[in-house]
This record gives sequence, structure tokens and C-alpha cells, in this order.
Amino acid sequence: MVLQELLGIELPVIQAPMAGVQDSALTIAVSNAGGLGSLPCAMLSPDQILCELRAISAHARGPYNLNFFCHRPASYDEVRELAWRRRLQPYYREFGIDPSSIAPAQGREPFNRAALELVEAFRPPVLSFHFGLPEESLLARVKASGAKILASATTLSEALWLESRGVDAIIAQGLEAGGHRGMFLDASLSGAAPFVGQLDSQVGTMTLVRQLVRRLSLPVIAAGGIADASSVAAAIALGAAGVQAGTAYLLCPEAKTSALHRAALASDAAANTAITNLFTGRPARAIVNRLMRELGPRDTSLPDFPLPAGALAPLRSAAQNRQSADFTPLWCGQNLPGCQSVPAAEITRGLAAGLKQA
Amino acid sequence: MVLQELLGIELPVIQAPMAGVQDSALTIAVSNAGGLGSLPCAMLSPDQILCELRAISAHARGPYNLNFFCHRPASYDEVRELAWRRRLQPYYREFGIDPSSIAPAQGREPFNRAALELVEAFRPPVLSFHFGLPEESLLARVKASGAKILASATTLSEALWLESRGVDAIIAQGLEAGGHRGMFLDASLSGAAPFVGQLDSQVGTMTLVRQLVRRLSLPVIAAGGIADASSVAAAIALGAAGVQAGTAYLLCPEAKTSALHRAALASDAAANTAITNLFTGRPARAIVNRLMRELGPRDTSLPDFPLPAGALAPLRSAAQNRQSADFTPLWCGQNLPGCQSVPAAEITRGLAAGLKQA
Repeated sequence: MVLQELLGIELPVIQAPMAGVQDSALTIAVSNAGGLGSLPCAMLSPDQILCELRAISAHARGPYNLNFFCHRPASYDEVRELAWRRRLQPYYREFGIDPSSIAPAQGREPFNRAALELVEAFRPPVLSFHFGLPEESLLARVKASGAKILASATTLSEALWLESRGVDAIIAQGLEAGGHRGMFLDASLSGAAPFVGQLDSQVGTMTLVRQLVRRLSLPVIAAGGIADASSVAAAIALGAAGVQAGTAYLLCPEAKTSALHRAALASDAAANTAITNLFTGRPARAIVNRLMRELGPRDTSLPDFPLPAGALAPLRSAAQNRQSADFTPLWCGQNLPGCQSVPAAEITRGLAAGLKQA
Repeated sequence: MVLQELLGIELPVIQAPMAGVQDSALTIAVSNAGGLGSLPCAMLSPDQILCELRAISAHARGPYNLNFFCHRPASYDEVRELAWRRRLQPYYREFGIDPSSIAPAQGREPFNRAALELVEAFRPPVLSFHFGLPEESLLARVKASGAKILASATTLSEALWLESRGVDAIIAQGLEAGGHRGMFLDASLSGAAPFVGQLDSQVGTMTLVRQLVRRLSLPVIAAGGIADASSVAAAIALGAAGVQAGTAYLLCPEAKTSALHRAALASDAAANTAITNLFTGRPARAIVNRLMRELGPRDTSLPDFPLPAGALAPLRSAAQNRQSADFTPLWCGQNLPGCQSVPAAEITRGLAAGLKQA
């Protein structure tokens, strides 16, 4: 079944959910342009999700997608937390921050019962999951709600795991993708920062799409490096049923990307990204900034996802007050110069032009 | 100008030169199939090159390419050499090797005056360079010989550098590519294992091709992850003028790939590659084997390229005598399952089928 039919969309172009830099305004704009707009729910409370869902219901004419994280909740480790704060000590001094004043790091809820209840009440047409899938009983009820289910795979093994659990389509997240890598398998085998130790398993979008298309019967959605019509045409040539693009939408007026993030995206710095776990403990692609440069982008002794963000928060704010993104995660994929400051509908149509070239 | 016209070939499909695993037999087979066969000269003496050139002249009906490395010759550093041998000590013990019996590591000549003289005498139609370009006076004489010049770029900066020096086309070597990464810029900025410290600058083939096509007026040749007709169609959709494929040819009867290497390529292990510098001191993509797993694939304190191979040589031989590739570099790109045990002409035609899909 083609992706358009499966998801009820006009164009097989999915706007990647991007927690922290967008709300329902972008979701609505993309859905109304014929693509699949996504709402990142990972950092929202149930009340906030409800509020966004009401906005979407009121304004979106097409289907939309709710995205959730399925990580294992963090376990607090004082040794790791203290080691991390010790690494940040010179920066605390520089900004006159008293480390004892820093609030304890906050965990983040994976997809849970409260989220399920919203899904059952609102019946969103599509749900997508990152970092695996919800536990079996929750997943069964999501399916029973009628939602189509998408999930991210970064390797063939992850894709086969997802297929065996009955998802409807797979997002093939190649190494080029911005933001958090969806890696979720094999992490338990290793102790410290397991996903960072597994980065060599990550392959480029071209390779991943080919590997998945040859082995799966499900539709494969290419993600990572999808930034213009030509890359969409390439994805289709590789056998993808559709594409997911994130960075391409970051400069849209409908995105909530900060001014500092926008400036970085529009500068030459955006060509220089790296996979880092400094911001949250999980590998994610961002523009190289001062924190990444000075500490090195990866640290295998960090607290669990997403706890490292806690100790960074006051530095991030203090630097931002000085108009500096030195401690801000500047999520960005390897696809410069894909993003432009134009409405999301225009980006969507620009990407969709590649469908005809293919 | 299209690549076919520039190079005088029928199909814009270049067989990647692969030092150590092929000789002129593969070059000839690909050239006779309408692609551009390549001869890797990096590990050959002038006499050996001469012998291969005679074979090519006698049997190749189409143009061919001679490939040379342009690295800075190694400087021997006793501290690094001893540290490397100390890391290998447990393996020497395991195989009963007396470290004092190991011959001193041998350097490798970059493109030099002797090579130039062969070029001037034989006038090969195409030369390709890896790790930058020969020094200016040599390059001028190569150009004067009438050869078309290709060179590898792994970043936009490297591509612009090559363009400014007058090459005829650029090979965009994406992160997916097997074998040595062509990285050559900025290495002098850092001391130890500079290219390993710069791996975050390396981008996927999709991204690299887009970046280069948007900025250069030269033809761009996509390399990395090119393994079947679909990936060729994708490369063309991205704007590439042609493709270069290496791994796809490794199982051909015309290749000199060892039986152990062939077995690894044909196994599931081939899906698990990593960029390693253990074998030569420079980053190169290979199938993960015991050495890479046990030492970790990258070491920033290794001797200069290609000296680490010296201390490894007796281990490699001893293991191979036991039918083990535990210490053998199993070069391979991220493109499984691209390679098949069929004649090179069939691989070339299979790749070229993607040109029509595009």
C-alpha cells in the first residue's frame, strides 16, 4: 500500500517532530499543505498535549502525527551527576553560577498511560515513536484506537524488531539526520553511555533505505539528509515510500526555533555538525558549538537521558542572556543548505517537487 | 561537459581503485564493459606499474584510470612505534611471535617523480588522486601530459581546494565509502592522528553530493554506498555526473580479493563496518574484526600512515595461516548487500541500469 493511502495524506512528505523547537503551528501548516504534520509530545505534559490537540483539531484539514519517546526512564546516579557538574565547573565560574543553586535534573516521561488516555480520547490518525515502542499492553491499545503507527529504525536489526511488533511503516533514520538518533537496541549490553559506544553501527540514509527496502515488506520512510527536491527524488529512487524532513522546516515562520538557533542555521557554522550526547545523554546531531568543541562532542560517563540537561540549564540561560548559543543544543542535520525562511507550505511543496523528478 | 565526454567513456561508472585487492585484470574488465577501470598504484613499484600498464595497453579497449596517493611521507616516531607494539604484545604472545624479529615498518611513496615519468611515457587517459594532489610542479606536468585529473574530496572545503587547483572532476567520497577516507585538509592543525580527530567533519554521500553540486561547476562523482542500480539512480537524482563503486566489485572473479576477505564480504559480518585507523594509521572503513573489536577501532597515538601496518604484518600472516582474518583489513563500504560473485562487466552493467531509472 502506498504511504499516501496508508496515512490518508496527499503527499508522502512527513514533517519530522522536533521537540523544543515547534508546536502545533508547524503541524497544522504542513498538514494543510498536504503533507503529514507532526507534533512532538516528548516534552509536553498531558495538559499541554490536550491544548495542542485542540488547536490541531480546530485548524488542520488533513491527518497529523503525534510523536512520543519510548526511552527507559532515567535512573539517577549521583557519581555520574557529580562528575558531570565537575566537568562544567569552569563554566559555572565563568558565569558566576553557584552550582549548589542548580535544581536537581528532571527526568522525562516516556509514552505512558496518561498519553494513551489522550490517544484513546482524541484518536489521532497517526502516532510515531522514537527510541523503540511502548510496552506491549500500551501498544495494543494504541493499535486498537485505530491510529497508524510509525517508528524510527537506525539499523536493519531495529527495523526487523519494529516490523515484528506490527508497526505500519518504518522511518529509516540515516546518520545524516539532525536531533536525537532513534537507537534503541542492544543498549543494555553495555554499561556507560551505551548508545555512544554503538555509533559505528549507524549508517548513511542511502545505505539504510536500501537495506530496509530489500528486507521489509513495510513502507520505508527516508529520513536524514532530506532537504530539497533532489534529495527527495534520490530517496524515492532508493525505494523509499516517502520522506521525513526536519531541519528543512527549522527556519519556517511557523517553527518556534529560537533566534540564536535560526542565526546558527543560516550561518556557515551549520555545515559543521556532530553527533553529541552532551546535551541530554543520548546521541543527537547538532551544530558544533563551544560546549561540544571544548569538551569534545561525546562523553561516555554522563548521567542517563535526559538528566545531563539539568546541570547545563543555568549555563544555557546565562549564555543566552548574552546572546550566545555556546551551551544551547543547535539541532541540525547534515543537509545544508536546505533550510530557508519560507512558510512551511512552501518547504513542503518544494520537497514534493522531488516526487515528480523520481 | 558530461563525464562520459570528459573521460571518453561510454558509461559514467568508475570502478574505485582498491590497493591490495585488485590488479589490472579488474581495470581491464571494467574498461571493456564501458566503464572506467582503475588501477591502484599506491602499493606498486614503478616496475610493477609498468608491467600493469603493459597489460592494460594490450587488453583494455576503453580509457582507464591510474590512481595514486598524495600523502605526506611518514616521519618515524620511536615512541609511537613502541607504544603500538606494546598494545599488540598480547597478540604477539598468543601467536608465539618474537617482537624483536619484526622488520622495521616501511613507508610508502606518494606520487613522485618516478611515477610522473611513467605517466609522461605512457600517457594514461585519466589519473585520480587520493589524499590531496601532487606538489604543484608535478601536477603541472601531469596536466601537460594530457591526462584528465580526478581527485577525492570528503568535504566541501576539500572540493573547493581541488577545484582551485584545476582538477577536471571531483569524487565526492561520502562517509559510507569503504577503504581509506581521502581526508587531506586541516590535518596539520592537530598533532596526533589528526584525521581521526576530524571524523565528525565527514558527511553522508547524499549530503556531500548536494553540497558539491550546489557550489562547484565541475562534474561531481558520487562515491560511498553506490552498490546497485537504485543507488546509482539516487546519485544521479542528487545531481552527480557519475558514480564510483568499489565494494560492489570485491567479489568479482577479476578482483584479487583474498578468500578470507571474500568470505567476510559474503557473510552477515559485512553489515557491521566501522572507520578504523588501526591498520595503517589513517581512517578507513572495514568490516569489524577481532583487532578492531578488542582495541576499539580508532587509536589517536598510532605511528604515521602507513607505518602501523608493519607491526601488524606478522600477526596478520600468522592469523591468516590459521584461516583467520582477525588482523586483516577487510575493506568494505556501507552498502550491503551490494556485492555479488559475478564478472565485473555484469556489475558494471547492473550499476549502469540505474542511469536509465534516474
